[in-house]
Amino acid sequence: MSDEHLTDRESDYVASSYERDTRYLTSRITRDGDEGWPVEPGRYRLVVARACPWANRAIIVRRLLGLEAALSMGICGPTHDANSWTFDLDPGGVDPVLRIPRIKDAYEARELGYPLGITVPAIVDVPSGKVVTNDFAQITLDLSTQWTDYHRDGAPDLYPAQLRDEMDEVMHRIYTEVNNGVYRCGFAGTQDAYEASYDRLFVALDWLEERLAGRRYLVGEHITEADVRLFTTLARFDAVYHGHFKCNRQKLSELPVLWAYARDLFQTPGFGDTTDFAHIKRHYYVVHKDVNPTGIVPRGPDLSGWTRPHSREELGGSPFGEGTPPGPPSEGERVSPAHNPAIDANGMVRA
Amino acid sequence: MSDEHLTDRESDYVASSYERDTRYLTSRITRDGDEGWPVEPGRYRLVVARACPWANRAIIVRRLLGLEAALSMGICGPTHDANSWTFDLDPGGVDPVLRIPRIKDAYEARELGYPLGITVPAIVDVPSGKVVTNDFAQITLDLSTQWTDYHRDGAPDLYPAQLRDEMDEVMHRIYTEVNNGVYRCGFAGTQDAYEASYDRLFVALDWLEERLAGRRYLVGEHITEADVRLFTTLARFDAVYHGHFKCNRQKLSELPVLWAYARDLFQTPGFGDTTDFAHIKRHYYVVHKDVNPTGIVPRGPDLSGWTRPHSREELGGSPFGEGTPPGPPSEGERVSPAHNPAIDANGMVRA
Repeated sequence: MSDEHLTDRESDYVASSYERDTRYLTSRITRDGDEGWPVEPGRYRLVVARACPWANRAIIVRRLLGLEAALSMGICGPTHDANSWTFDLDPGGVDPVLRIPRIKDAYEARELGYPLGITVPAIVDVPSGKVVTNDFAQITLDLSTQWTDYHRDGAPDLYPAQLRDEMDEVMHRIYTEVNNGVYRCGFAGTQDAYEASYDRLFVALDWLEERLAGRRYLVGEHITEADVRLFTTLARFDAVYHGHFKCNRQKLSELPVLWAYARDLFQTPGFGDTTDFAHIKRHYYVVHKDVNPTGIVPRGPDLSGWTRPHSREELGGSPFGEGTPPGPPSEGERVSPAHNPAIDANGMVRA
Repeated sequence: MSDEHLTDRESDYVASSYERDTRYLTSRITRDGDEGWPVEPGRYRLVVARACPWANRAIIVRRLLGLEAALSMGICGPTHDANSWTFDLDPGGVDPVLRIPRIKDAYEARELGYPLGITVPAIVDVPSGKVVTNDFAQITLDLSTQWTDYHRDGAPDLYPAQLRDEMDEVMHRIYTEVNNGVYRCGFAGTQDAYEASYDRLFVALDWLEERLAGRRYLVGEHITEADVRLFTTLARFDAVYHGHFKCNRQKLSELPVLWAYARDLFQTPGFGDTTDFAHIKRHYYVVHKDVNPTGIVPRGPDLSGWTRPHSREELGGSPFGEGTPPGPPSEGERVSPAHNPAIDANGMVRA
């Protein structure tokens, strides 16, 4: 593995085992602005790549909460070089709001010679052009708890106060064992490190298979941030992690409970309609030259299963509780049906 | 792709599409010895690697026909370098009969500076130490048609005269589209060449899925050489070709007819009991450094499905017709249960 093809977050090795570099810009955008960055509609821009599971969380949460008008979104292309993600999808290769070709420029605006990982999601202060935060785990929680004045009518509470202890525990295990666990398999430097990582991952998936057999969502009766965090890894599992990262005891589609759970979320507005399988596959298979030197992107897997009935309604619960699902995404923020066969003309997953 | 890690048969490229080098030593060992190599019990040694699908055919056919006493077998280890397959599994790394460390030595004995691919299966004339033939497609047919005096009682006719026209046609399509089709995917040099190869492979698998829906075996009512030839690719499909060669529209286990057909054969003496999944995975993932630079061998897939009921008996037909299945393999020729979880203490697949 050479650093040049990876975001910094993917490149830090300790001996033969993969360890994620978890040093981020941790400034928070808060309601009271106590860290110097007050919530303010129109002031910030969320920069994402649809390929990236950590950014996909923020895309989903922003959409579920209806923050599109308050917090605009810039979308990087699926691949990048040593200088990290670029706005190559935009006309002229420049983000139309930030007027920069690559997100690195906003990190440099924050700190010249910025020494840590250039990652997405990142929230940029548009007037100054500086990245405020790329602390992906805090970003989504703050969208839920600090931006409440700008949530849409019917927005779900994704981080309900009375569930936080249980959620924090479940999300911690999902982060270390699943979200990061697939990377630990794929970037293991030795056979032993890989095998230990594989065993650890599937212990966690077996735990989830059991936990979700009797309940529709991970915590409580409705969708929460915990479901968002698990979904973004599951959505990439068969398309990338199964083959590219050798997480191949089974496909997700061979784990009946988790597969039905993932399909249920996929078919819920905000989840499948933000999933760009083409970007996902292209990112991993092209950027990780040291895992896949040919750069050839697999044509499979067949994705038609994602829209099959899941029967999870029988378990009770409801996705949005007393709230409502979000409507169709705006035209500029739709995933192409060429990239996700489930997307319809309104940018939604076909029922 | 560099030549140094591949057998010659895997290394020949024409432009961006993979084309197999099909130049072999084509001398035939015949009943009447008209090519100078008469069938003679104890004279020849079949050299194989359990990893290799082309060699696996010969292992299966020799066992189905009960030729063990007439034709001994030398087994190469799963990995090799630029000098091709070695006898690294044998004490001292030397074949106990041929007294050579690598099969290349027998090719050099046949022709100094042998210029073509050093491949298995190869049949070596023990007295002279020379390779007689490595023409894998002819080797198994000749075991069926030239070695009949030494077949066991109850041996099946794997190439029945009245079925040959149909068999030749079916086997040709299986060879070009499936046996070789998976390599065409895995060794494609460009995205376009890969995608065309992938489509071509799955057209063929869909054809087989349809053909085998209503009949237990490919041609006729019993096992033939055609089934042997398809089986060795199917046995490697989920373990290697799905991920390593990006043949990932579905796993074999997601194609219900072909998966039941493959399980039926696997559970028939001669098939599953000659399948060494550990050698298979190790070969491809270690030898093809240009596809898998880390050399890490996937821990999956879960293989437990291979022994599940297949219900193919309902289609009629019977594996051995009026013949009988072979008994347990001799102790020195058993696949280790550590390499194939279905193998029992007698070296057979557990019923």
